Amino acid sequence: MRPLDSLGLRFDGRRLTVLDQRLLPDEERWLDADDPARMAAHIRCLSVRGAPLIGVAAGLALGLFARTDASADAFEAAAAHLRAARPTAVNLMHAVDRGVAAYRASGPDGAWAEAVARFDEDVALCDAMATRGAALVADGEGLLTHCNAGALATVGVGSALGVITRAWADGKRVHVFVDETRPLLQGARLTAWELRRGGVPHTLITDSMAAVVMREGRVQRVFVGADRVAANGDFANKIGTYGVAVLAHHHRVAFHPVAASTTVDLAAPDGAHIPIEERDGAEVRGVAGSFGRVRWSPEASPVYNPAFDVTPASLVTSLVIDRAVLTRDELAAGALPKLLGAAR
Amino acid sequence: MRPLDSLGLRFDGRRLTVLDQRLLPDEERWLDADDPARMAAHIRCLSVRGAPLIGVAAGLALGLFARTDASADAFEAAAAHLRAARPTAVNLMHAVDRGVAAYRASGPDGAWAEAVARFDEDVALCDAMATRGAALVADGEGLLTHCNAGALATVGVGSALGVITRAWADGKRVHVFVDETRPLLQGARLTAWELRRGGVPHTLITDSMAAVVMREGRVQRVFVGADRVAANGDFANKIGTYGVAVLAHHHRVAFHPVAASTTVDLAAPDGAHIPIEERDGAEVRGVAGSFGRVRWSPEASPVYNPAFDVTPASLVTSLVIDRAVLTRDELAAGALPKLLGAAR
Repeated sequence: MRPLDSLGLRFDGRRLTVLDQRLLPDEERWLDADDPARMAAHIRCLSVRGAPLIGVAAGLALGLFARTDASADAFEAAAAHLRAARPTAVNLMHAVDRGVAAYRASGPDGAWAEAVARFDEDVALCDAMATRGAALVADGEGLLTHCNAGALATVGVGSALGVITRAWADGKRVHVFVDETRPLLQGARLTAWELRRGGVPHTLITDSMAAVVMREGRVQRVFVGADRVAANGDFANKIGTYGVAVLAHHHRVAFHPVAASTTVDLAAPDGAHIPIEERDGAEVRGVAGSFGRVRWSPEASPVYNPAFDVTPASLVTSLVIDRAVLTRDELAAGALPKLLGAAR
Repeated sequence: MRPLDSLGLRFDGRRLTVLDQRLLPDEERWLDADDPARMAAHIRCLSVRGAPLIGVAAGLALGLFARTDASADAFEAAAAHLRAARPTAVNLMHAVDRGVAAYRASGPDGAWAEAVARFDEDVALCDAMATRGAALVADGEGLLTHCNAGALATVGVGSALGVITRAWADGKRVHVFVDETRPLLQGARLTAWELRRGGVPHTLITDSMAAVVMREGRVQRVFVGADRVAANGDFANKIGTYGVAVLAHHHRVAFHPVAASTTVDLAAPDGAHIPIEERDGAEVRGVAGSFGRVRWSPEASPVYNPAFDVTPASLVTSLVIDRAVLTRDELAAGALPKLLGAAR
């Protein structure tokens, strides 16, 4: 069996392992994930995170299980178990559904081949986004990113961060400002770790400093990921993204969401149709992770904690997807449904 | 001797005590501060913080010491010790200088009377700002504030937060969004505590959520403090204030810095003349306080950590000072030097 390698997931031809992202940036510990129940546990506890990575990881765990002497009943039970690991993760649901369909149609080899195809597809999507996005970057530019849309969230080079690391690999001398991304600190923990690992020059800032680095002329371009893109180009991403978009607009800094075309939801005409999950207030009253747990605000403080926000396409300079770079005007003229509608 | 009472400092006629602000919001512990050396230690370790409070506290400690049988040499040594507690705190320096001058001119009673006069002045300044600012607030408005410009930072009702609590006390049904204010979390720790204590309805958010609550129409007005106001109305305040000003401008939300006229520095023609202190990167890589200490980003991550930022007067709806409310147009027309120049 062909080995598969990514920043957060490896298959060496026999064994499937995942990087425990909860322990980053201080420790790089790889976890056995051969068994679907074990993979489900890793997904549930966020050792494995990032929508594309979760989907691919679940598919591979299921495909590997199919190739043991598992019964059809055991396979279906494992699939149900994996699907339930994170109930709201659409990628996970689709990956499991595809694995089950392939198994039913072509048996264990079909389920494995399907999972490997999804791995390869994610690598190719990331690569295409990185190529198109990096072409926008000029030598010497200051870049800013929010959250982690990097190789850790996918099995390829990532989306927004893949663009940035590709620009750097292409020899462009960029400097990256990394928003820490409260409340869950994906920028400070994961993006800072990835950039450090890749040797890309960067500076960590609190979210509240993005405005100042823009005003000081240190940032020419913002790249952010997207969890869901509506037909008109409005998109949902990690909380704080919308504020960065407003700041970029005010400072005439280019602003680019980066997303795979599989992230576009043509059924959502605009951002108002994207539901936003609200999370537990404890995340805002303090921090918790493998690094420790502290609370600094009054325990009973009322909190608002939306996990995502929606940025209107009117604040987008251009949207980078694997198949095209679409400007604000093109998005407004219906370019997304035109480009992707026929294929669906 | 007349008792003095404020949220963070008390004199009961004999003893001077200060609230240990490092332990807030979880514990309210009062510390003896009779002795200038002890007060200097409280100021140095940030148990006593907030420019106006520091100045008044140092003056009272010095005045009290003068009234013991301290020698003139001991008094001058105590003054030098207090002045060095936070070398960049201008209020502290001025308070000590005034105490020394009063002592030299009129002896121990003069030093004490001078300190009490500064206490009363701060109360009156806060009261005037609160009255003028609260008049801007309409019933039912959503308000937003950043950092802590409250009663804890002064010996009166505070500046920006004094306006808010006055509006509430006046019967206006406001709701306050509190930016947590990374990196040092003054909003989450202190402003949330003050509002809770005062029974003012509020919601704690991360700094990155301010944009969304504005977009959702939940905020009509922003009040923030100011550490220094330039002659043209540009002002320095806690890092993150400038970003909030840009977001308010974009969403047509009124934006008001609130400052005592003693905070206006007519020698600085504009914001470019206000120096900005940069602090240790460890503050951004994690958090530390009486609540605990954790680090979540790579230990060697390069960090940018300006303690303050400058907001241009062009983003100000009106500046609230104790003596007037000055609109953006009035500030641009030189209202501040006209109002305050003669008095200086």
